[in-house]
Amino acid sequence: MDLARNTVTLTTDFGTKDYFVGAMKGVILGINPDAKIVDISHEVVSHDVWGAAYLTGSSFKFFPNRTVHIVVVDPGVGSTRRAIMAVTDKHYFIAPDNGVLSFVYADPAFSRVIHITSEHYFLPVIGSTFHARDIFAPCAAWLSKGVEVEKFGEEITDFVRFNIPAPRKESASVLAGEIVYTDKFGNSITNISFTDLRDFVESAGIESYKIQVKDMVIDKLAPFYSSINKGEHGVVVNGNGFLEIFVNHGDARRTLGLKRGDSVKVVFG
Amino acid sequence: MDLARNTVTLTTDFGTKDYFVGAMKGVILGINPDAKIVDISHEVVSHDVWGAAYLTGSSFKFFPNRTVHIVVVDPGVGSTRRAIMAVTDKHYFIAPDNGVLSFVYADPAFSRVIHITSEHYFLPVIGSTFHARDIFAPCAAWLSKGVEVEKFGEEITDFVRFNIPAPRKESASVLAGEIVYTDKFGNSITNISFTDLRDFVESAGIESYKIQVKDMVIDKLAPFYSSINKGEHGVVVNGNGFLEIFVNHGDARRTLGLKRGDSVKVVFG
Amino acid sequence: MDLARNTVTLTTDFGTKDYFVGAMKGVILGINPDAKIVDISHEVVSHDVWGAAYLTGSSFKFFPNRTVHIVVVDPGVGSTRRAIMAVTDKHYFIAPDNGVLSFVYADPAFSRVIHITSEHYFLPVIGSTFHARDIFAPCAAWLSKGVEVEKFGEEITDFVRFNIPAPRKESASVLAGEIVYTDKFGNSITNISFTDLRDFVESAGIESYKIQVKDMVIDKLAPFYSSINKGEHGVVVNGNGFLEIFVNHGDARRTLGLKRGDSVKVVFG
Repeated sequence: MDLARNTVTLTTDFGTKDYFVGAMKGVILGINPDAKIVDISHEVVSHDVWGAAYLTGSSFKFFPNRTVHIVVVDPGVGSTRRAIMAVTDKHYFIAPDNGVLSFVYADPAFSRVIHITSEHYFLPVIGSTFHARDIFAPCAAWLSKGVEVEKFGEEITDFVRFNIPAPRKESASVLAGEIVYTDKFGNSITNISFTDLRDFVESAGIESYKIQVKDMVIDKLAPFYSSINKGEHGVVVNGNGFLEIFVNHGDARRTLGLKRGDSVKVVFG
Repeated sequence: MDLARNTVTLTTDFGTKDYFVGAMKGVILGINPDAKIVDISHEVVSHDVWGAAYLTGSSFKFFPNRTVHIVVVDPGVGSTRRAIMAVTDKHYFIAPDNGVLSFVYADPAFSRVIHITSEHYFLPVIGSTFHARDIFAPCAAWLSKGVEVEKFGEEITDFVRFNIPAPRKESASVLAGEIVYTDKFGNSITNISFTDLRDFVESAGIESYKIQVKDMVIDKLAPFYSSINKGEHGVVVNGNGFLEIFVNHGDARRTLGLKRGDSVKVVFG
Repeated sequence: MDLARNTVTLTTDFGTKDYFVGAMKGVILGINPDAKIVDISHEVVSHDVWGAAYLTGSSFKFFPNRTVHIVVVDPGVGSTRRAIMAVTDKHYFIAPDNGVLSFVYADPAFSRVIHITSEHYFLPVIGSTFHARDIFAPCAAWLSKGVEVEKFGEEITDFVRFNIPAPRKESASVLAGEIVYTDKFGNSITNISFTDLRDFVESAGIESYKIQVKDMVIDKLAPFYSSINKGEHGVVVNGNGFLEIFVNHGDARRTLGLKRGDSVKVVFG
């Protein structure tokens, strides 16, 4: 009972207008009727491997131990790109081998990656476009029923991972990061965590700082969104501990024109 | 078993592109693996407290007894606005104290409101932006497992509620209401119920009436959408018993330019 | 236990911004707390009966035996159009009688259609617009609990079905089909299956062919999406075995201007 891995999450770029996600769920429930299937998001921009990786890295730890996470943004579907299973201390991931699990590999709890080759766990593969239904979903369902990781294939070490940009010490008084994600509200999330900020303060011994984004300078962190006037912009520590640029009751992406990759600097002193 | 409150609903303005809703569900399932989580809507317009209140008031009675409803449109997240739990004869609600439960307070079955202060039911709160994950979701999950309402905090009576516009008798022959919501099809829903209409007829003793919306006059209720020609507009009694302005096979909001707050009058005689 | 029909799917044009789908789920769980409810799609274009029919036909077989499928695109709601239940060897369907189950009727496993008239399984019907909540959802829930099909009403044979366009042999060397659906990625799906193609090759004895869509000629099937250059268009066999026109990493609908009904021809020799 305790060994069950019945929670299965889905993160895809499939949208919700078609039958794709429904068909995956039908396959999972046919194999494991006790599966509890949770959608993380199906609104990842088409083919945006980074976006799916970011959502996965931001959410998986909030799920119960032994959750199985399916992550499918897969422009290479049908090609020779591998199907893989990644394992951490507490979680399982099933995905194409295209870097979409890069945040998982960067986690201290990451253990290993298996190349999924045991075709007897697959559905008959129809066409070349829907491995999510024919391979990823059934493998996740069998895994969720308790099939051992080793049964799915051999461990590999040459899996694809991409670089996750970390903030860097540009000088003794500048910590340089960037925008890595924009959420539904238009809030622009940076890769600079509050811990990064605090560590810099401690090592540099300088307590005062300003935050620079484009031609704006923000004096200090807002304790919460509505602590500043409506329509004004500020920086807050968000739910994952990262600095986030926002407009109170507004849309920072639209108002400030921010996008992924834009520079954000914390200037101390 | 019968005491379980395992159904948990979610109504938010979080959208479905990010990981917010998924993370809430992960937290709930981690605490109560038997929870049956149902999405009401995550497409409430950002910060539209009224919209979430309306959806909650329109749907909660159709859920099983002892359902726990989480309602989070929360522009004041992280500020001193309170987290609350409302209780009716048959349902539980967890929300920020910003009026989003106003339709619940207006219901005859409404019982009381608790200020949630028992922090041992919270997750460690990270940042100031995601109380839905760190406070509302875990409290709902513990409540759904059967923790008593009284364990979460003290009763309060000064909770925030906003006025729900009621139709009013403008004269002996005019019942004046307004548009309160527009649905996905573009149907514009009024705050005038069929019961209001019937009561007026009975008290005024006048049976014939016309409905006025902007410069349009509609002669009588349509028994159903397709009872009028395609592209024509009419008024129907909708699934919650309210008058609804529609265009058969069309979009009344777009065609007629209707929006929340627009006047709708029933003129008798 | 094995007789349970606990999986219930939903396909509608209700969207996800309102409370419609949530209310249906509340009703289902109130009747059958063990129901496992799966959304196929609620993003069918408003009133697009064909779209819902296509999604249903494309997905139902991937669900467990004894699944109950609710399909509601219902512009005639409240009129005299009938509520029906269709039965195949392994699946159940509940829908308005407007052709939305036409793909089910075309399936070899199709058995019969019942006119749902047993009002004691309905909720009290409020208004004339929400039979999905008041009739279809509760009937599906009772069916999912094991109530026999015969209890819901009498068999009928004059149910509404529309013609599903099949590819036709235009000449000894031309197989003529059309675009029947466009998915979220902008891929345009034809009604020509790989089996149709192979059968034509076998009967005509001609192995080489080209595919004509508008003024484009495509030389051969792509084995998978990324087998051609980014931005180029091709034809692939999709997850249901049909020819699909795509642009690698792009949107074929937008780039090529394709829409439902557009001609697609396979020219042999």
